Amino acid sequence: MTAFKIEFEPIGRRGECPSGKSILDCALTIGIGIASVCGRQGTCNSCKVQILAGQVSAPTSSERNAFSAGELKAGWRLACQTYPLGDCKLHIPVESMTTTQRLQTEGLEVVTRLEPSARAYRVKLSIPSLSDLTADADRLSAELNRQHHVQCQQLDIEIMHQLSPQLRSLDWECQVTIRDNEVIALGPWPSNKLGLAIDLGTTKIAGYLIDLKDGKNLAARGIMNPQISFGEDVVSRILAAVKSKDTADNLQTIVVEALNQLGHDLCSQVNAKPVEIVDIVVVGNTAMHHLFLGLPVEQLSSSPFVPAVSHALDVKTRELGMNTAPGAYLHILPNIAGFVGADHVAMLLAHHRSLSKGVIIALDIGTNTEVSLAKRGKITTVSCASGPAFEGGHIKYGMRAAAGAIERVHIEGEKVLYQTIEGAPPIGICGSGILDAMAQLYVTGIIDESGRMRDGHPNIRSRDNQREFVLVQQDSNSEQQAIVITQQDIRELQLAKAAIRTGIQTLLEANDCSEDDVSQVIVAGAFGTYIDIASAVTIGMLPVIPQEKVLQVGNAAGMGARLALTSLSKRAEAQSLARKIHYLELASAPNFNKTFIQASYLGRYWITDGNRIEIK
Amino acid sequence: MTAFKIEFEPIGRRGECPSGKSILDCALTIGIGIASVCGRQGTCNSCKVQILAGQVSAPTSSERNAFSAGELKAGWRLACQTYPLGDCKLHIPVESMTTTQRLQTEGLEVVTRLEPSARAYRVKLSIPSLSDLTADADRLSAELNRQHHVQCQQLDIEIMHQLSPQLRSLDWECQVTIRDNEVIALGPWPSNKLGLAIDLGTTKIAGYLIDLKDGKNLAARGIMNPQISFGEDVVSRILAAVKSKDTADNLQTIVVEALNQLGHDLCSQVNAKPVEIVDIVVVGNTAMHHLFLGLPVEQLSSSPFVPAVSHALDVKTRELGMNTAPGAYLHILPNIAGFVGADHVAMLLAHHRSLSKGVIIALDIGTNTEVSLAKRGKITTVSCASGPAFEGGHIKYGMRAAAGAIERVHIEGEKVLYQTIEGAPPIGICGSGILDAMAQLYVTGIIDESGRMRDGHPNIRSRDNQREFVLVQQDSNSEQQAIVITQQDIRELQLAKAAIRTGIQTLLEANDCSEDDVSQVIVAGAFGTYIDIASAVTIGMLPVIPQEKVLQVGNAAGMGARLALTSLSKRAEAQSLARKIHYLELASAPNFNKTFIQASYLGRYWITDGNRIEIK
Repeated sequence: MTAFKIEFEPIGRRGECPSGKSILDCALTIGIGIASVCGRQGTCNSCKVQILAGQVSAPTSSERNAFSAGELKAGWRLACQTYPLGDCKLHIPVESMTTTQRLQTEGLEVVTRLEPSARAYRVKLSIPSLSDLTADADRLSAELNRQHHVQCQQLDIEIMHQLSPQLRSLDWECQVTIRDNEVIALGPWPSNKLGLAIDLGTTKIAGYLIDLKDGKNLAARGIMNPQISFGEDVVSRILAAVKSKDTADNLQTIVVEALNQLGHDLCSQVNAKPVEIVDIVVVGNTAMHHLFLGLPVEQLSSSPFVPAVSHALDVKTRELGMNTAPGAYLHILPNIAGFVGADHVAMLLAHHRSLSKGVIIALDIGTNTEVSLAKRGKITTVSCASGPAFEGGHIKYGMRAAAGAIERVHIEGEKVLYQTIEGAPPIGICGSGILDAMAQLYVTGIIDESGRMRDGHPNIRSRDNQREFVLVQQDSNSEQQAIVITQQDIRELQLAKAAIRTGIQTLLEANDCSEDDVSQVIVAGAFGTYIDIASAVTIGMLPVIPQEKVLQVGNAAGMGARLALTSLSKRAEAQSLARKIHYLELASAPNFNKTFIQASYLGRYWITDGNRIEIK
Repeated sequence: MTAFKIEFEPIGRRGECPSGKSILDCALTIGIGIASVCGRQGTCNSCKVQILAGQVSAPTSSERNAFSAGELKAGWRLACQTYPLGDCKLHIPVESMTTTQRLQTEGLEVVTRLEPSARAYRVKLSIPSLSDLTADADRLSAELNRQHHVQCQQLDIEIMHQLSPQLRSLDWECQVTIRDNEVIALGPWPSNKLGLAIDLGTTKIAGYLIDLKDGKNLAARGIMNPQISFGEDVVSRILAAVKSKDTADNLQTIVVEALNQLGHDLCSQVNAKPVEIVDIVVVGNTAMHHLFLGLPVEQLSSSPFVPAVSHALDVKTRELGMNTAPGAYLHILPNIAGFVGADHVAMLLAHHRSLSKGVIIALDIGTNTEVSLAKRGKITTVSCASGPAFEGGHIKYGMRAAAGAIERVHIEGEKVLYQTIEGAPPIGICGSGILDAMAQLYVTGIIDESGRMRDGHPNIRSRDNQREFVLVQQDSNSEQQAIVITQQDIRELQLAKAAIRTGIQTLLEANDCSEDDVSQVIVAGAFGTYIDIASAVTIGMLPVIPQEKVLQVGNAAGMGARLALTSLSKRAEAQSLARKIHYLELASAPNFNKTFIQASYLGRYWITDGNRIEIK
């Protein structure tokens, strides 16, 4: 039997595919989890892949339904419908992967020239004697400067606290790490020179351990933000911090502890130690930024919502209680406004080059959704209060992406197909599942464009004075509880998607553009990466834009943090980028209320001169 | 009755003196404590003053005995023998004051151009609004830079921790203090801008509060170093710190707490607050420097006795737990070697200008005595292990300068005259009293030049197998205990003075000089300031040098610290001064043992080609 070599990107796995086996089955055989809801029927579109090289079977009718001609031309296919005809190379987008394979740290890789803040040198010293009584620190800097032609006069005080016994135990040979003209780390030669990039989200924290000697990503890890116990969203945490100084301190402490644990775990993965971390870059929204740095947040809680500080900061890690090399600094990217933070700047930094061509919309979907529109070098940014619905908040069976969460939904007539995380028995619905469900309820006519649930489908029932749609039937044999989407859930989701769409429409209007002018939409963030874009367009969260113009970049904030970690030029670029961003206060925009009402309707449409035109 | 106006310097008091009253009685009348041991007989020479201006009575025969012609010409007189003939201005040297009037902080004033590290500005800010959402910190630096044409981009993180509520409570007008390009303090306009200079001695700590707006000394205070409970001398404290990390931490903590209390008390004296302190300069010996900064000291405890660091340091005060303005720095002057510290550099800094003329010996007498010899711009320094005898240590009735300590001794035949601190009943002998007693015992022939106690004086008696001299007789009526000086005490004192003299002689030899070449001796430090120089020469601690060539400068280390506090140029000068000092390891000097033995003899003599020549 013939077998073809298949290369799966971006995960870098290779495998053999016997002829006659679909790409989906081939992937599953070698242990790559690709989503599949409809059971290989080609109807749910959850197994999308992109063929980068090689010959495959011709598109089936299902695939011609699923993709536009442009998309097909770009190599987009359904893995369950496509059969290799030779060696192939293909790309699995993050949203097609099953959740167990996701770290919530993935993102489109952007490469930059290695230009870290910290430089490491090997230094050999002469031994003090009665004829050479030079002090240890002075001896070190003199030899460092002489041997490596640098101008380092300063040693961090914590380095000096350990220097004398350390030099003696290392037998007067060491690795010295300097930043600007200051010694920030000292260890045996050779030691690691590590950097830590952190995307500090309201819900999740992503950490990346980088080898600053070659720029390589050594390990990545996603954890929950432990501040969640003080409130799910930023506003409740800000209010808690304002109410009590102890709570504010506690909010800072627990996130620092979590970051220390994250750093420790990442280091353990590669047999390194946190003391080898010589630089950290942190990005986060303005509230996370302030709470982490212990900055006052009361002024963030009322109009005009002014940050305590916007420019980029460099702080000794020990000032924050972070475990690193003794003298290391932490760099935190600039923020823009009370509700547009350093994470959005990092995202824009990661895709800065893309922003210069045409009209670009970049959005990072979360409890708070930041949207930027770039047009001829000018960037305008708004912040949308999209709320927690897409993260499962305020939704009856809503839950985070964890085992047993429904992550994909497909409705075929009276059949409701779904896929759960890890294939576990369903216990709730996570963000991408909620979005799919809403889109499927709309396209099947179970809800109308106003979001009202209609009678007529067998899964519609009434409970507690409202209609609800049963996604999963109760089954007393297996102790399976029913899982439903209620009319109230739909209303919550409408508010969330309307907030985002209002942001997009307001930016288009403010920049005198229409959807047609948009050359690319960059969708970042964990949720935005795992959702089905077609579903998002179907419910009108995103404007009708050809799928090939939409780029799901994953954790772009994390990518931006990694760029700033590995390159001082990128830090400078982030600062100048932040300065030229024009922040638009959404609530004070003209037509805000009108736009918001229009944006709450479901369906593929756009607004022109106040007329709502449905696109079929 | 005629009365003359008398002005007493450096304390700045004025008073009226009726004709026919001596300067001593006039001073005592208006409350200035001048020492007087012999009861106005003109024999004890403890009431020396210098007439700066005005007419006084002609010198008596006592005064012609007490002073050389040169000294008389320079205005030196005994206050008990001198009567004003008109308005006068006179100088009371510190050693002539009674101890209760001494702060142990006094020193010869040296003035420099005001050039502090910290600059303060008044800044008025516009109020944030929906049309001006600039972050608080960015708003502050933009307005500061615009209004005052500075280039300040950085705010200390602790400033940012308080900035937002502070600006609002100050109604957007404040005093901003910057150092380099960093905001280190923020308060209401106008606030104080204070500096704290600290001489951190092994036994005593002197603190000076300076107004950095005009350079004026606002308050001064001397306290005991609480580390004394861990050992009287530096070596025992170093060993304690080496033995246990907890002890090392504790040694640091208690001195920081003492300095905080000192800063607090100094501020209270002038109704100021420690938060208004924007700069600190600390000087101290190398061991005090290291223990205070938490630097390792093990390498200080064994040959070759290398400091962890020698160059000047700038450290955030909060890194040390010091209470100041949130972002303030502490500057610590450079040290020279394991046993020549920043305090000696500070002393040399204070008298740097004097060091360029002729051959100058500068010494700071203490448990460890540092001696420098300057000749044609070259400075050589030694460290002498003089021990604690002059501070009352290892002396049977030795005690520190406190109420009841005998501070002056004068022997007239069978009469032993003495003066105690605060005139209290005698309970022991302090440093200057011990020195006087030894000189008096020698000049009256009670001990010979080898230090042996002779029989023949009624106060000589034997106890515990050794001779002793009774300074104060037991008196059962008044419960007065006997106070004696034992043969063993004399031996201890001989070792102490021999150590100092060996340092001086070694420096003279190494620089190819004799006592005759010496143009000035600068004696610094509390003990060196309060001693009678004639007594010091009599016992051979100092070479035979005309008294007018001896300058007792008081706390010159404290003065040097104040100069460095008020002037960045002086800090740079201290650093370059430290670099050009040549440290000489005394124990490895040729002839060390021979010189030490010769130096242990009492009497006015010098050494030429190995021959000891007595000077009468």
